[in-house]
Amino acid sequence: MEPGTARIAVDLLGGDDAPAVVVDGALRACRADPDLALLLVGPVEVADEIIRALPSRDRTRVAVRPVRDAVGMGDAPARAGRVETTVRAAVAAVAEGAADALISAGATGATVIAAALGFGRWPGVRRPALVASLPAVANPVVLLDVGASLDPCPATLTQHAAFGAAYAAVAHGVDAPRIGLLSIGAEPGKGDRLRRAADPLLAGANLPCGARYVGLIEGYDVALGARADVVVTDGFTGNVLLKGIEGAYAMAGAPSASGGVPRAAALLGVAGITVVCHGAATGEDLASGIALAAHLHRSSATAAISALLSAPDEVSA
Amino acid sequence: MEPGTARIAVDLLGGDDAPAVVVDGALRACRADPDLALLLVGPVEVADEIIRALPSRDRTRVAVRPVRDAVGMGDAPARAGRVETTVRAAVAAVAEGAADALISAGATGATVIAAALGFGRWPGVRRPALVASLPAVANPVVLLDVGASLDPCPATLTQHAAFGAAYAAVAHGVDAPRIGLLSIGAEPGKGDRLRRAADPLLAGANLPCGARYVGLIEGYDVALGARADVVVTDGFTGNVLLKGIEGAYAMAGAPSASGGVPRAAALLGVAGITVVCHGAATGEDLASGIALAAHLHRSSATAAISALLSAPDEVSA
Repeated sequence: MEPGTARIAVDLLGGDDAPAVVVDGALRACRADPDLALLLVGPVEVADEIIRALPSRDRTRVAVRPVRDAVGMGDAPARAGRVETTVRAAVAAVAEGAADALISAGATGATVIAAALGFGRWPGVRRPALVASLPAVANPVVLLDVGASLDPCPATLTQHAAFGAAYAAVAHGVDAPRIGLLSIGAEPGKGDRLRRAADPLLAGANLPCGARYVGLIEGYDVALGARADVVVTDGFTGNVLLKGIEGAYAMAGAPSASGGVPRAAALLGVAGITVVCHGAATGEDLASGIALAAHLHRSSATAAISALLSAPDEVSA
Repeated sequence: MEPGTARIAVDLLGGDDAPAVVVDGALRACRADPDLALLLVGPVEVADEIIRALPSRDRTRVAVRPVRDAVGMGDAPARAGRVETTVRAAVAAVAEGAADALISAGATGATVIAAALGFGRWPGVRRPALVASLPAVANPVVLLDVGASLDPCPATLTQHAAFGAAYAAVAHGVDAPRIGLLSIGAEPGKGDRLRRAADPLLAGANLPCGARYVGLIEGYDVALGARADVVVTDGFTGNVLLKGIEGAYAMAGAPSASGGVPRAAALLGVAGITVVCHGAATGEDLASGIALAAHLHRSSATAAISALLSAPDEVSA
């Protein structure tokens, strides 16, 4: 654990099984990390449930921002920008300095829009990316995007490659990360229109942290991590693949339901630390998402990544 | 084993590790199935290696069609239609009636083009689909397309849903199969442009075999098969997901390298039985692909599926 208090704004109403799983996750996170403080964003009675369950000496670690309205999983994402929802209030709390980072297991699209509107984007950023770190044989594999940017253009994939390179270096300490473009064969020219257009752009991109582009990789390479440290793809394919690997681990009888596949992902490209949890997240998943948000704050990862990307000669196309 | 001889044309030069794995696969297939006959398509010296390894009484089960040229994994797929390659010769052998089905572990795009040109398509078919059957908790899950049709239009996904329904009914005996559209959330409206356009088309499609459309499903549902018997997606996403599940099984320490994920897929939409193997196929994979080709011939599956799809009131949009 890195030293220092981390104040995490928690969307109490995000997730298929909210608020119960969020209550459980918040309590687990408080037990695991004595330097954690939580700003509970949502109905007062849900926040009270968490506060009552804490030992009395710990109750000062928790503050409440009352909000009644949530974004439903079926709501249009833009609703998060218009009405005062829990996720929008959590973003506002971070933007005002009342918290250091936020976490939501609500609808991903709504969280991305709320964060982009509330924090603004990093300079020159087209579209944000959600980045997940999968356990692999050696270093974790950084997979992005896992659901923030659907139907991206080739230049967005190049920019996300730079995000991923910086994230692998800063969050996982990978030196000179290998960047692969997810496709359906390793030979140049394999893939759909988006991949065929992105491959030459990536080959010519100036990537930070000594990263090098290794070309096309396949789905098989993602779980094992043998060929690339960072795997770049569109948000649709990345989301399907991440959940597909999770299902395979569940089918194979892995120790936990997720088989170690992370159910929390960091949003890169917006000027505030945002962690998104899987809608089907459990209390354990929420707690690990809160720990990820605290780690990103304590290591100043988001600011470090943003700085790497805006350094001269390090900006990708 | 269904009764009756099955004569399978085998592309001796297809696959990353050809011809060694094809030799191994052909010998395994002959040992496993006494009613199998093989037409070996490729260099005579490779065919001789197989013939010499067979017991003398079995040598009459094998015939040879000499061809020297293969499609490389990095070649443009259209090359398969222009020059006399092993895969094109294997298609021609089936079209002439010298074999009942063909198998190739060569470049998928080249095999699809050779089969479409050599056999023609089923009436009204836009684009063929490669269909893979994954072991799941109950019935196998039929996943298509796994690599034949990149960048499909929404109507192609609807047609592939009908292919998948008929395949689940004919090849796996699934009654009233449940059809799911692979997306990134289960709520209507979730997904990229292609999925948002295909979802209402599928909801209104007339599907064969009593199939019903169950809406959007997620990557997690594919390996487990709890929500759909047939999973429809574009060839890029399906290929990435299939290989991703395979990699996860390898990572989880499953009994075989593929963890039971099939490395052979049937091509639907062309008027001849065609089985495509993974470029990284082993001899065991080739043998199971030959067995799949023989099964599809003996059960008249391809003709039955084609007839189901062209029956009145059963044609999808």
